Amino acid sequence: MPITLADIESARRTIEGAVLRTPMLPAPRLSELTQAEVFVKYENLQVTNSFKERGALNKLASLEDADRESGVIAMSAGNHAQAVAYHAARLGIPATIVMPVTTPFVKVAATEAHGAHVVLDGETLSEAQTRAEAIADEQGLTWVHPYDDPLIIAGQGTVALEMLEDEADLDTLIVPIGGGGLISGIATAARATNRDIEIVGAEAALYPSFWNALNNRHRTIGGATLAEGIAVKNVGSLTLPIVRELVSDVVLVDEAHLERAVNVFLTRQKTIAEGAGAAGLAAMLAQPERFRGHKVGLVLCGGNIDPRILAAIMVRELQRDSRIVSFRLTIPDRPGILGQIATRLGELGANILEVDHKRMFLDVPAKGAKLDATVETRDADHADAIFAALEADGYQPLRIDAGDAME
Amino acid sequence: MPITLADIESARRTIEGAVLRTPMLPAPRLSELTQAEVFVKYENLQVTNSFKERGALNKLASLEDADRESGVIAMSAGNHAQAVAYHAARLGIPATIVMPVTTPFVKVAATEAHGAHVVLDGETLSEAQTRAEAIADEQGLTWVHPYDDPLIIAGQGTVALEMLEDEADLDTLIVPIGGGGLISGIATAARATNRDIEIVGAEAALYPSFWNALNNRHRTIGGATLAEGIAVKNVGSLTLPIVRELVSDVVLVDEAHLERAVNVFLTRQKTIAEGAGAAGLAAMLAQPERFRGHKVGLVLCGGNIDPRILAAIMVRELQRDSRIVSFRLTIPDRPGILGQIATRLGELGANILEVDHKRMFLDVPAKGAKLDATVETRDADHADAIFAALEADGYQPLRIDAGDAME
Repeated sequence: MPITLADIESARRTIEGAVLRTPMLPAPRLSELTQAEVFVKYENLQVTNSFKERGALNKLASLEDADRESGVIAMSAGNHAQAVAYHAARLGIPATIVMPVTTPFVKVAATEAHGAHVVLDGETLSEAQTRAEAIADEQGLTWVHPYDDPLIIAGQGTVALEMLEDEADLDTLIVPIGGGGLISGIATAARATNRDIEIVGAEAALYPSFWNALNNRHRTIGGATLAEGIAVKNVGSLTLPIVRELVSDVVLVDEAHLERAVNVFLTRQKTIAEGAGAAGLAAMLAQPERFRGHKVGLVLCGGNIDPRILAAIMVRELQRDSRIVSFRLTIPDRPGILGQIATRLGELGANILEVDHKRMFLDVPAKGAKLDATVETRDADHADAIFAALEADGYQPLRIDAGDAME
Repeated sequence: MPITLADIESARRTIEGAVLRTPMLPAPRLSELTQAEVFVKYENLQVTNSFKERGALNKLASLEDADRESGVIAMSAGNHAQAVAYHAARLGIPATIVMPVTTPFVKVAATEAHGAHVVLDGETLSEAQTRAEAIADEQGLTWVHPYDDPLIIAGQGTVALEMLEDEADLDTLIVPIGGGGLISGIATAARATNRDIEIVGAEAALYPSFWNALNNRHRTIGGATLAEGIAVKNVGSLTLPIVRELVSDVVLVDEAHLERAVNVFLTRQKTIAEGAGAAGLAAMLAQPERFRGHKVGLVLCGGNIDPRILAAIMVRELQRDSRIVSFRLTIPDRPGILGQIATRLGELGANILEVDHKRMFLDVPAKGAKLDATVETRDADHADAIFAALEADGYQPLRIDAGDAME
């Protein structure tokens, strides 16, 4: 094995005071939901809102003076970029971050705000990677890999030391898995501390690179995922053997469970998880029987999610719960009808959010019209009662949202 | 003074192990924003997501056996209700919670889920209060007041003991103020520990009850506020003298600053604050010079905010930042124009979220039409560039959102 418990303990001394010792707290409302005893490690509370600072700082702090002066380079469109930029700036080390040209502007700005020199090059991560390697060679910069480096892995492993210090008898740790740096460090630290603890990876079903490698399968890899932080196409050459040796299994989580887990963290735990950060909880939601009764530590590894995506998830979940419902009515096209219906909806306790009155459909009588309404209800029973009342009034409400798509 | 440091230390022993000792963590990104050194006390991580459990449990635990058997009653539509319900159930004490009939269903359901008997009565809080007092008398129930009770105040004061234990040299604590229970407990504990520490209240500008009392003013009280948790019309008879004696001043925060503070907690701290929970940060945003350079402890006292309101705040902030912009174009009404414009917006990097094509306006030529579009941009500069390009193309884009209402 390329790293040992001693390496991780050394990393812990290196990063102490410069990386937050994040809280791990019992989460009774997640325990109730999953029928397990759940603890959450809040890595989203780091300054750059992810665990990536641990490995990045451990690596940066290891550099000789000459290498510090030359500077470092990393390729990342995400949390690793911000972590390297932030700690390099703190240590006075020049940092170059290469990102694909398609990187959202907010991520570029956040990385530049930490003082890094950002180079936008390449349409894809692999093109950006090629470009970054060329710059590193040309300029003699030290490479800071996001996961396939013993110092990075050792840094990420410090998460487990803190978790087991706070709660020694956790029996299961569920860890998001992308390139495998976090889970490799955690598995090394945790299994050295407690041979019986079970380490489970949570991998995005669209990017089953470790799952394929461990199961000798060849599922297709790719696509748009909410968990872009763990959307990694290739396993690490250092991390795969560690995962093979120390990780019990890898659970694949689909987009619906990732989305639901982000929403559960938000509504029940009052904390923001990005898709990758919620992958561990998504695994519990996907396979509840697998974890029932266990004492589980979840690593909420990052909180960097686009506010617009988060807002969309929240509204979609309200639709799934029928707290927001959209329906279409065919109505006579004469004065006063809209007022009647709006008044009726008010009596029924439905709060109107949107109304769209359409006369131009061919499938209604020439003197008819269609009314699309979106209303807020108290819950699914209330939504059913509203529909029943409209039917009793002689309308034929047709539900037009995807209210029960998840059920 | 009705309570002493000893009462608060006693409360701490009473609630230990049953109420979370929440983390207080440095918040460098809030520090950067406010030019102060900011620490956040995460009371939103309590099981019922607010500090109210501290006082409620301290009160419940004080009851004699006979009173426990008879049960307790409280009047609250919010966090106090859930806190009383949760800890009464834990202790096997029957709890009745009276709420106004207008209480959102989710809050009723959350309170019932904790095992309380909920009585919906009264159109307003004061009607519900009258009803609750009648029930308490009829049934011989012990009253659990939300703030005007020495045991409640002492329980809330435990927040300050923990904060100063973690960071002894905080020079300022900013505390949301509604009925005054939290700030009275905190001020008593903190000033007994450190005579020089400054305690500042953050009160909703629409509910300036303490501000009026302290400043001998008579500003109007009432209206819809995001901070419904501190929308209290009357000061407490126990809390007012404590606040008068120990609190430096009360800062009024308006709705725009409350909204912005909720969004800052969400986007920078990755945590959910309800309006009242964000009031302390709102005070810092409203009066930055007042707190600049101070070492400030913010009490994030609660996280119970309606997801739909939170989603709306997030989208409004994106509009304020011009990351979502809506505009209207007057266009010739002929085939192909919509395609041309949509293609052009794509070239400009604007991601179309909504399009509405209207032909029926009187203020356009008979052969003209109006097109309303909502697009996502990278930032305000990008939005300006898009408008400039559309103008160069011969359109006259008219911005129709409230993009800069806050500036």
